[in-house]
Amino acid sequence: MEATYRALCEHGYASLTMQDIADESNKSTAALHYHYDTKEALLLAFLDHLYEAFTDKYATADGENAVERLVGFVDAILCQADAEEAEQFQTALLEIRAQAPYSAAYREQLGKFDAFVNDRVESIVEDGIEDGTIRADIDPADTAAFVATLIDGVNTRRTTIGDTGGGTRRTFVAYVRDHLVAPGADVTVDGSDDGTSADENGDEAAADETVLEGDERTDGSGDA
Amino acid sequence: MEATYRALCEHGYASLTMQDIADESNKSTAALHYHYDTKEALLLAFLDHLYEAFTDKYATADGENAVERLVGFVDAILCQADAEEAEQFQTALLEIRAQAPYSAAYREQLGKFDAFVNDRVESIVEDGIEDGTIRADIDPADTAAFVATLIDGVNTRRTTIGDTGGGTRRTFVAYVRDHLVAPGADVTVDGSDDGTSADENGDEAAADETVLEGDERTDGSGDA
Repeated sequence: MEATYRALCEHGYASLTMQDIADESNKSTAALHYHYDTKEALLLAFLDHLYEAFTDKYATADGENAVERLVGFVDAILCQADAEEAEQFQTALLEIRAQAPYSAAYREQLGKFDAFVNDRVESIVEDGIEDGTIRADIDPADTAAFVATLIDGVNTRRTTIGDTGGGTRRTFVAYVRDHLVAPGADVTVDGSDDGTSADENGDEAAADETVLEGDERTDGSGDA
Repeated sequence: MEATYRALCEHGYASLTMQDIADESNKSTAALHYHYDTKEALLLAFLDHLYEAFTDKYATADGENAVERLVGFVDAILCQADAEEAEQFQTALLEIRAQAPYSAAYREQLGKFDAFVNDRVESIVEDGIEDGTIRADIDPADTAAFVATLIDGVNTRRTTIGDTGGGTRRTFVAYVRDHLVAPGADVTVDGSDDGTSADENGDEAAADETVLEGDERTDGSGDA
């Protein structure tokens, strides 16, 4: 599975061969073919492996309340340290996504990632409505679809145009703050004191910078 | 160019050959090669042609004020009558987008579409701030990046998981209504009396249905 990941990063999906994957591993193509009839079969197993890792990693989100957890969840999916590797991987994933209309098996696997993101957001929003930090008239399922769409949009835009600026992230935070947060709730979104920034040195300028960079970074194990 | 469009819809991008395009036209592959050295060169000319049509079509948006024009612009890009043809075309576009990291020429062409959508939204939001329908503290550039990301997200999710439900569109409208519209502005968003629905028979149920279906339909000439 790690060899598949490296081969996808290096070669992309379209031109990827079993030989490329074998080259990244200590296995022969014959050994690969023994387990997987086709490239698609191997990639499906890889997507399954990725799904397990993805759902383990994002099963919980840090934050003192639902609003912080929502912003933290989105940030965690969209931010990663190694931007170059993540970009290569997201590119390969976008190629696989473009194959979904031709392959029911890909569509089903990719649909599981989407359903997971949806379920997580829906459940966080429901928690927020219950704990009073999110407005009671917010629709959890609609909000979840919106957030899942936004995550897909960030990944697609990054792949196709590169640097996307921090505007999407800033507007998302403003949307959460002005639209989702219940009136009077004791919740601070964005800035240096909200717990959503990885930078916890309390330096507001530094924390803001982290926020601004949020859109630039990608996540290798991000939403497929 | 029309032959290229039809060939892309039928074959997708990855497996598309000059022969496929010739088969859809009344030209020989020799004639195609006379004008275009490679498939990429032909596709770049096609993207250029598409860009002209796209920017002509969406240069203006209907609506009595900036808020209506913003929602109308997004709806127009994301909605189209022939959903099947549009899905095929969006799939091919997603394949081309996934090639962008490998091709500076594709990246540049795709960047022009993105820049156009950004500029249009930014300019509509600026108009709204000026005419008092949009809050003065809204950042036009950030909002434009957010909307462009959302449009990309809708197209990507549709391609990879199919039916995406109407939640994204409903949440976008709620975001516009609760977050962008200036307090006290005489603007109605959503429902049957806002001018954003194609259905103008004044039947609220029918108009609502149009709104709910918004997410399902795709636009063949949509944001690339």
